[in-house]
Formats: sequence, C-alpha cells, structure tokens
Amino acid sequence: MNMPLKIPENHPRADSLRIRERLVEAFEQGAVARAGLIAHGRGEAFDYLLGEQTNQPAKEAIRAAAALLLTAKKPVISVNGNFVALTPKEIVSLSKSAKAEIEVNIFYRTLEREKIIKSLLERVGATRVLGVDEVNSTCIPELGSERRRVSSDGIFLADVVLVPLEDGDRTEALIMMGKKVIAIDLNPLSRTSTKATITIVDNVVRAMPKLISEVETLRSTEVTDLTVIAEQFNNKANLNKSLTYIVERLMELAG
Amino acid sequence: MNMPLKIPENHPRADSLRIRERLVEAFEQGAVARAGLIAHGRGEAFDYLLGEQTNQPAKEAIRAAAALLLTAKKPVISVNGNFVALTPKEIVSLSKSAKAEIEVNIFYRTLEREKIIKSLLERVGATRVLGVDEVNSTCIPELGSERRRVSSDGIFLADVVLVPLEDGDRTEALIMMGKKVIAIDLNPLSRTSTKATITIVDNVVRAMPKLISEVETLRSTEVTDLTVIAEQFNNKANLNKSLTYIVERLMELAG
Repeated sequence: MNMPLKIPENHPRADSLRIRERLVEAFEQGAVARAGLIAHGRGEAFDYLLGEQTNQPAKEAIRAAAALLLTAKKPVISVNGNFVALTPKEIVSLSKSAKAEIEVNIFYRTLEREKIIKSLLERVGATRVLGVDEVNSTCIPELGSERRRVSSDGIFLADVVLVPLEDGDRTEALIMMGKKVIAIDLNPLSRTSTKATITIVDNVVRAMPKLISEVETLRSTEVTDLTVIAEQFNNKANLNKSLTYIVERLMELAG
Repeated sequence: MNMPLKIPENHPRADSLRIRERLVEAFEQGAVARAGLIAHGRGEAFDYLLGEQTNQPAKEAIRAAAALLLTAKKPVISVNGNFVALTPKEIVSLSKSAKAEIEVNIFYRTLEREKIIKSLLERVGATRVLGVDEVNSTCIPELGSERRRVSSDGIFLADVVLVPLEDGDRTEALIMMGKKVIAIDLNPLSRTSTKATITIVDNVVRAMPKLISEVETLRSTEVTDLTVIAEQFNNKANLNKSLTYIVERLMELAG
C-alpha cells in the first residue's frame, strides 16, 4: 500500500526525512504503532523549535539524570516502540552502565508488538527484557487503560524510572506511587515534562548517547555528591529555561 | 498488525486523539501515506501552540483568501491524502462555491493512492478530479521528484492555487511560475507559509468551513473591491502576528 520513501536528494529537510525512515522501518516491522508515527511528527515539530540541538538546560538535566540513576537502588528503563526504533543500542548500553532493568510499556498494548520490541532489543545485546507476556504483573492504581499493567519485577519495585516519550497519565501515576521519574520529552509543556522529577527536553537520538557518557563520567563520584547533584536540580526552573530558549528562537526566526 | 485505537475515556487529550482517528482510517484505506501520519503529528504540535483555535490573523487571511479565490480566472484546489482525510466534504463544497478545479497532488506518488483519494472525493459529491493517471500532464520546472507533474488542465493553467498541507518546494515552484498561492499551514515559519501569497495559519478542519462561508459572504462584492481586499493583505505581517500569538501563549503557559 505504501511505497518505500523516495527522498529527493536536494530536499532541504532531507536529514529529518532520513531520521524518520528509522521510525517507518520499525513501523513496518510492527514495533511502532500508527499513533507512534503521529507522535514522532509531534516530536519533529518541537525539535524544530529547539533548533535540533541539545541546549544548555538539556545538558544540565542529563547530568542530574545520570546522578539520579547512579544513586538509584532499582532503576528501570521503560521502553516503547518509538524509543526502541530510534535508540536500540543506547537503551541496552545505558541499562548496562546504570545497572537498570529494561521494561516494555506501550500505550496500545498487543502481545505481538511487545514481543517484536523485545526481539529488537535482544538483537542488539539485551539479555533481560521485562514487561512482555508476564505472569508476574501488577497494576498501577488509577490508570484506566492497558497502560496500568507493570512488571512485578520491574517498575513496580523501581525507585527511579526513565520514561522517554511517555504518556502523561503514566508519568503522573508513577510519581503518585512515590517513584522518581526521569523523562526525555521534546515538549517542555507536556504533562510528562511538568510532572517528572527530572525532564530532559531533547531528542532521544541526541540525549541517550550523552546520558550514557555522563553516567560513565560520574561513575566514580561519591554517592553523597551524586545525591547533591540530583537534588539540587530544579525541574520547573529548567523547563522554563527550555521554554525561554524556544521563545527566543521563535523571535529570532521571525526576524 | 495494529489494533484499533482504544482511547481511554478519561484521557485529557481524547479530543485530539479522536480527530487523529480520521487520519488513521484514511491511512487504512490507503489514502494517507505513512509520512502523512508523521506530518499530521507535526501539525498537532503547532496546533497545540496555537491553542487549537482560529485566531485573528487567521481570520484576516481567510477573508483575503476568499477574495482572491473569487477574483481568480482559474482557481485550483490542490489536494493530498491528509487534506482529503480531514475535510473531504469541505473540499467539494469549496470547489463548487469558488468554481475551482480539484487536483490530486501527493508527495509520494502512486497511482493507487491517487485513485483512492479521487474516490473519497467522488463519494462526497466531486464530479471532476484532475491529476489522476493523466495523459495530459506537464512538468513544473526545477522540481526533482514526482511532485513535478501537474495536470495540463488544472494547476498548469491556474492563476490561483490553494495548497493546504503542502511541501515547501512545490509552493516555491508554483510562485516562480507566476501563480498566486493560498496556503493553509499550521507552521507560520515553514517555507510554504513564507513563500505563499496568502497563508492561513490554522488547522484545515477549522479553516475550511470558515473559508467556504467567507466566499459566500463576499460573493456579491464588486470585483474591484475584492481585488483591494486581496491585494491589501500583507502575508509577512500576518505571519508575524501568528508567531507573536504563539510566543505570547508560550510565555503564558510557562506561567
């Protein structure tokens, strides 16, 4: 029904169109939902407003996130189709560096898609992926859909959860359960961004390698110092800096 | 591979998710490309920044667009899968009110998709749809892809072309061919928006009914007066007003 995308060589948005191909490929493989393609488009728009680069507030959030991951007792990386489509290797690499579990959590749940997502991660070295066809699953209170279900060995026990490209309801529910949430979200105004403990306003494609490298950098830091780094981070103030960055860029583009 | 979307009743973005279903349905029918789903997501993000309502600058652009359509010798409405998915009846209704041809022009061209788009329009009353499997097609100079091709009976001869949700390259090429272009685009910074003669920064779902009603309102106005309305419109100034609107809303949302 859909032909392969033919991107004209001289198209000015060729780079963005090529990144998009990774999503489309994962869609064809069954890892990404139709709604995931639409969500990617929303991300593209916000990334465009951010100038498609990691700005200073994002770098500060990445440092705090790395410190929080290193002080966590049980960190878990929550993954969905889009996240796995864009940064499969980085997810596995971060889970090893930060000793974090990986758990599949998708908005439109089907066992088939969960299995495909798991296999894409295993293909790049994941040895344990939770959240797929589990006997041991528990429900998050107060969530109305299939998104309630979490692994009893994973998010249910986690103290810190990394939730990139996440739905606002879930983020809120995790916070209400007393967990600390690290979000990677291109929209500084989203409910996920405003509810999370630490929000990295950046594209996962750029943020994940930087987060891995920051975890490596901070690995030998004392726990008490890491705690200070994580606790000194002010998410609301940081989100306002990202928003100011966007507003200034818009005014500059307006000329 | 993809289950029907189950939208949780209490989800705060339920309205936006339901509008999205029209796109997904047209995608299933083969009218919308995968890239069209992503493009819709970009639109959602900009519409969110606009507060999901038709603002004052958009209303001014709609009035000027109606005047330009009514003074045109040969107006043509260029349609793609997303446009037809969202406002099929309005496209047919505007083509009748403004005596405009309808021509299919899609970025990722396949004869199959062209035919499906045509049939969706015929189902709601279109009697003539150009741009599908034509013997009489001509090329727009300086465009590298399949998007070069236009109908010899339609856009090639048109003096005014309405291009909603259009690619920047094509808009630029049409302007270079001496045509006046009316764009409906949610991004006031896009190349389409900045190159067009008149840009309506609004969602087609809201803009199209308003455009039809403005055409009816202005129908009995003298041609000389219509010409004044169309020519007095300053696109650059209007785009800056839309941008200012977004910036003010962002600052308000930031609190």
